[in-house]
Order: sequence, then C-alpha cells, then structure tokens
Amino acid sequence: MADRPLKELGWKTPLESARKPVLNRIAKTGICGILDPIAPGMPPGSDTSTLAMLGYDPLKVYSGRGALEAVGSGVEVLPGDVAFRSNFATVDENLVVLDRRAGRIANEDASKLVESLQKVKLKKSKNVEFLFKNTIQHRGALVLHGSKLSAAIGDSDPEETGKKVLKLESQDQSPEAKRTASILSELSQSFHRVLNQHPVNRERIKHKLPPANIVLFRGAGTIPKIDPLGEVFGVKAACIAAVSLIRGVCKVAGMNLIEVKGATGTPQTDYMAKARAAVRALNEHDFVFLHVKATDVAGHDGNFKLKIETVERIDKMLGHILDNIDLSSTVLAVTADHTTSCATRNHEGDPVPVAITGPYVRTDDVAEFGERTCSRGGLHRLKGADLMHILMNLCGHVQKFGA
Amino acid sequence: MADRPLKELGWKTPLESARKPVLNRIAKTGICGILDPIAPGMPPGSDTSTLAMLGYDPLKVYSGRGALEAVGSGVEVLPGDVAFRSNFATVDENLVVLDRRAGRIANEDASKLVESLQKVKLKKSKNVEFLFKNTIQHRGALVLHGSKLSAAIGDSDPEETGKKVLKLESQDQSPEAKRTASILSELSQSFHRVLNQHPVNRERIKHKLPPANIVLFRGAGTIPKIDPLGEVFGVKAACIAAVSLIRGVCKVAGMNLIEVKGATGTPQTDYMAKARAAVRALNEHDFVFLHVKATDVAGHDGNFKLKIETVERIDKMLGHILDNIDLSSTVLAVTADHTTSCATRNHEGDPVPVAITGPYVRTDDVAEFGERTCSRGGLHRLKGADLMHILMNLCGHVQKFGA
Repeated sequence: MADRPLKELGWKTPLESARKPVLNRIAKTGICGILDPIAPGMPPGSDTSTLAMLGYDPLKVYSGRGALEAVGSGVEVLPGDVAFRSNFATVDENLVVLDRRAGRIANEDASKLVESLQKVKLKKSKNVEFLFKNTIQHRGALVLHGSKLSAAIGDSDPEETGKKVLKLESQDQSPEAKRTASILSELSQSFHRVLNQHPVNRERIKHKLPPANIVLFRGAGTIPKIDPLGEVFGVKAACIAAVSLIRGVCKVAGMNLIEVKGATGTPQTDYMAKARAAVRALNEHDFVFLHVKATDVAGHDGNFKLKIETVERIDKMLGHILDNIDLSSTVLAVTADHTTSCATRNHEGDPVPVAITGPYVRTDDVAEFGERTCSRGGLHRLKGADLMHILMNLCGHVQKFGA
Repeated sequence: MADRPLKELGWKTPLESARKPVLNRIAKTGICGILDPIAPGMPPGSDTSTLAMLGYDPLKVYSGRGALEAVGSGVEVLPGDVAFRSNFATVDENLVVLDRRAGRIANEDASKLVESLQKVKLKKSKNVEFLFKNTIQHRGALVLHGSKLSAAIGDSDPEETGKKVLKLESQDQSPEAKRTASILSELSQSFHRVLNQHPVNRERIKHKLPPANIVLFRGAGTIPKIDPLGEVFGVKAACIAAVSLIRGVCKVAGMNLIEVKGATGTPQTDYMAKARAAVRALNEHDFVFLHVKATDVAGHDGNFKLKIETVERIDKMLGHILDNIDLSSTVLAVTADHTTSCATRNHEGDPVPVAITGPYVRTDDVAEFGERTCSRGGLHRLKGADLMHILMNLCGHVQKFGA
C-alpha cells in the first residue's frame, strides 16, 4: 500500500491521493506511526516483511522462499526438508528458455504432467523422497525429504527467456549442499525426459501451444525455526490471505489458514468476502491477520490509478469490519508490509504507515492515514517486528519481563 | 557542525544562529531527522562517525586510529600490519616532554630526519619491517609489517607537556601484544639515539629551535575488515576531504580520493574548490562524499563566531552544488559527523541533524536546517549507519531481502 510521492499525482502518493474515509477514521481515533519492515533503507520481500509483521526478526529466522511458498500452497514441509518454487517452462533442444511459463499452462494439463513426474524414481542409494505439486497454472512446489539436505542450492531458472537453463549448483562447499545439488540435477533431467515424451505435450504441440517440457527450480529454502504465535503470545491466530507465500509464513507461525471463496490475490479479489471472513474469524480467534495483495500488484505494474482504486476498495472493506466489530474490546491495526514504488515498480526500503485504534490507545493528532501524515504520529518510527508486540500488549497477551 | 545551545547565542546553537538559506532550502524541499552517529549519548571520533556515515557499524568494525590515518596520508597498510600516529617531539634528558610538536617542525627538516630514521635496523630475529613517513610538520605515521603483530599497544605520547614519555606497553596478555610492544620500544629507543645526534637537530639547537629528538607514538590500529562500498552497494564512490583520518576511512571503504587544490582541513580551506570538485566528481561516480573539517576545529577552540561563519561558508558551498546538479536525478544529503560543543570544546554524544532532498523523497514540514528543527522531521531519530542505506535505497542501489 505504501509508495513514494509521484509527479503524476502532484507529488502525492497513491495512498495520499485516494478517498479513504475509513482509513482516516482509524488514524483519527487511533495512534499512528511509521515502520521499517526490516531496517531503514532495506527493501523487504513479501515473506520477510510478513515474518516481521508477525513479530519475528527476519534477519535471524528467514531461510528462503521455497519452503514458505510450498507450505502456503498446501504441501507439507518438515524440518530438514528443502523446498523449491518451480515453474513449468518451455525450452528448445539446447535448453534455451523459450517461455518461462509454458504458455501459462492450464491447471488440468499441469496436473496430468505432475501425476507422471511424481512417479520418477530417484536412485535408491540417495535415500531421499520428493513431493512435487502444481499449484496455479505453471507454478508448483518441490519438496525434498530425507537426511543431510541443504538449501544452499542455486536456481536452475535463469528468470529470462532466451537464456539457457542454469546448472543446479551448490552454493557452499558442504557435502550436504553438493549432495542436494546432485539429487536435484538428477531429478531435473529425469523430469525433462519424461516431459519430452508426454502425451499432454504432444497434444500441446499439435495445438500450437508451447510444450511444458522442463521444470525450472528456484528459491531453495527450509522451514524457518520459529515458535508459533500460540506459544509466543498464547493467542489463537488466523490468517486470511490468498497468496501462497503469505499463507506459508502464517502457517509456519501456527495460524489457522481460513479459506475465502473469491479471494484471489489479484485486484479482482472479493474484498467484502475477506471482510466478512475476518469478522467471523474474530469470534473464534484472538488475532486475525488479513492480507490484501492487490496494491502490491498495482505497484509492480506502475499502475497508480489501480493502486488508488485498490486503496479505496480496501477502505470499504475496512468499513465493513469496523461496523461489525466491538471497538471497545477489539484492537484494529492497519499497515503495509512494504513500499512498492509505482515509479521504480519494485519493493523499496522506505518505511510504511501504521495506525492502531481500539480501547486504551494513546491517541495522537494524526487525522489522515498516509505515509507522511502517519510519520507525525505518536508511535514514531519503529521496526516492523515491534508492531505485533505493541498489539499483543494492548490486548493483554504479553508477559512481563522482570519482577 | 552540530552543537549545543549556547548562552552567548541566546541559547541557540551556532548552526541555529547562522544565516543559511541553502541549508534551509534543502530542509524545506526534503525530509529531515536526527542521527545518533553511533548510539545515543556516545561521543564519536571523526573516524568512527565517518565509518558510520558510510554505512558501517563502528562498534563492530573499528580497529583503531593509526592505520586509518596512515592510509589517509598515503601510506600503504596491509591486513595484519599495525600502524601508529606519530609526532616529532622535544624531550629533556629525563624524557620529560618539553614540546609535543617539536616547534611545529618544518616539513623539510622532518623529511631529513625521517630519511635517517628509515635506515634504523630492527633485530633480524624479530622478522618485522617498518615504514615511517612524515606527513605535515611534526605529524607522521609508522607502520609495522610482519606476522604475529597486535594493535593492543598503549601510547608513548603522554599528550601533555611536562609529563614523561610513557613506556610502550601491551594492553593484553597475548604474546603478539608483548612482542609488538617490545619491537616498538626498541624502535623508539633507536629513533631517540639517532635523533639526538642528528645534524638537523644540532642546527635547530643552534638556531634556538626545539630539537625533534624523539618520536611519540599513539593510536595503534589495524585496517578494519570492511567490504568496500563497491561491493556493498555496487557504487563507484569518491571522497573529497583534506583530513588524513577521514581520507583513510574513505580509502579503506574503497572510495576514490579526489585531490582538491586549496582544500586544507582548516577554516581557510577553499570551500568553492571543494564544491566544484564535488560537481565534477558526480559525473563519474554514483556517490560523492564531501567533508568539511572547519566547524569541528571552531568547536574545539570554543570559537562559536568562527563556527557560525563556517556554517555560512558551507551554505554558500552547498549553493554552488545545488545550482549545478540535476535534482531530478540526484539525491543530496547534509549532515554532521558529530556534535562538537563550543562550551565543552569536545566531541559530544548528542545527535546530529540530517536533511535529504531529491526525487521521490517523502517531504515533511521542516523548513529550517538545525539541531532542533530537524528533530521534528519525517526521518525521526536514526543511527548514523542507517543514513547510507536510506540514500542507497533512494538511488536504487540496495538489494531486496527476501522474495
């Protein structure tokens, strides 16, 4: 949601330009501030920033994207497992990538391919099992399960068409990394062989569709070693998010993942369905985390108009929540997990605004929710991981340190 | 540049008292805040604060003044070497210091003495070489090169006339420190013997000048282990500074040292020459660091009038820079490396003001550059080392952490 001032908006940010009466009401009745999701000037990923917003120090606990995304898409990843993001892609005979998404292959085709790939046998001596699952279109997750594995493995995905598939290599000299790289190389080659001869791909070629003849891997990761929120704060926590990566972080934090029909992680998501789900979830949970992806999508596309519209939809969504919770016993916080600049189209390291309303909050003079207005608020400038502790403190869920 | 409120200035600081339209313009068009160079209440040295302003954590990387100053005055110091600041001084027959600067001996005399001293032979068994170089007047640098050396060595300079030269002692029990202390003692005594009989000193005595009959050592240090800015941020960086210590820090950070005729590190420095050099340097560098020493000199002398004048000269210097750079594509930050109090005449641990202007900066309401006005700005209160990360983030030179 956060951004930088834009020339096209008269040097206002999209958030500052949006009509947002509910967000402003939250700011006005609450206490505001700014947060550095990780550290001043450090652009966060969505995974590291969400870890921070849930109270963890990403610099200490982050262990790669692969496992979080796998968990978020419903694949079990155990401690010691190494997981990778994967894409079905199209390569030529020299392994040059022609289409990184294999024509955004339909879920049905991908599922049929995965069924065959899951039957590939790894050399028994290696004592490793794998689980491969497709999620949406070309996307999927691979989990290696066994002993002596390492996540210090480079990507095979060159992340650009016209480039050759990268060799899967260990990133350090440990025997575990070398072993993992060798297993993954074997698997990658076996997958390629099976896919080259697969009937689904023969059909795709016949219909002039790019064949999904390779699986590209990236983002090797393990499950971060974190105590679940239930242990840290003694709360029953729920997550409403459509994006696998965010869901994975929340799952690892021990939160219940609530399924919401129509929640898509896109600008067309059903905002009101998410709002209703959040209100319902509050009946059975101490803490509910609701994540909207669309503002980030708009930022990456440089589409400030869409970003403004999205903020306005979020505002209405929050209106429904505010109208249906008891603010004499509920604390509500609004923030962004990072700044995505419509100008650079990237995550940036600028701080994000935050507002907290609810009982016993020490209100301030801020009456408008925005990057610059909130920075004048009573919370001052904090780290992302501070927010959760502040919220849990307001709700009486933290332990005294000392006597 | 930063100071404390002074009674003589109606409880304003020199910076607050100065006429500074350009600094105010930077504050008004930018975002302001205050920085604790190292930590709240901790008075920094010029070396530690410069390390911090370049983005390094001085509490982790600082390894003494000697090596930084040696590097800054053009002496090569390698990892493992131990370097010392040195002064030619005058002592009596009991080694009581009569003049810590040997009458601010002229460069030519000092050079002749150094020529003889460099010929001193260390006992071969010690397997150590030394390099001794004079810089300006009585000042110089000594570098010990060899294995098993330590910088845990006390000073021989008592830093006061009328006191006896201190015994060079190890500051810990390590064999390396004891060995280094013994080598340095041997060298110190040999130097004293050579100097006592040197024709230059006989001439000086004849002309009623204090003989430079001893070399005092202090500030033992090694090269800090830091990654150069080119590696940390991928930038080509330049330094415009006259002071050896600052130049040394910048050199160690991998920056190009730009020579500016007339830049002296004194209140009489050629401010405009530095400004012109900075504008030129920006054509070939991603990052240019310009340092002015004179405000600190005025603070150490308790000369608040000179400090105000210096701020006004700096303001004009910044005017030239602002008029000659493209602020739609350049980020400009102004700060002080520490507070030097005209009242205590020392470095103090109070925070320093900072203002950043340039494209896409989230401006605030501050319209005047000063210690107290800036503290109401949108940057809030940060650590010195945060500044570089914030600047590099604004310029697109930082990597995302996470996915």
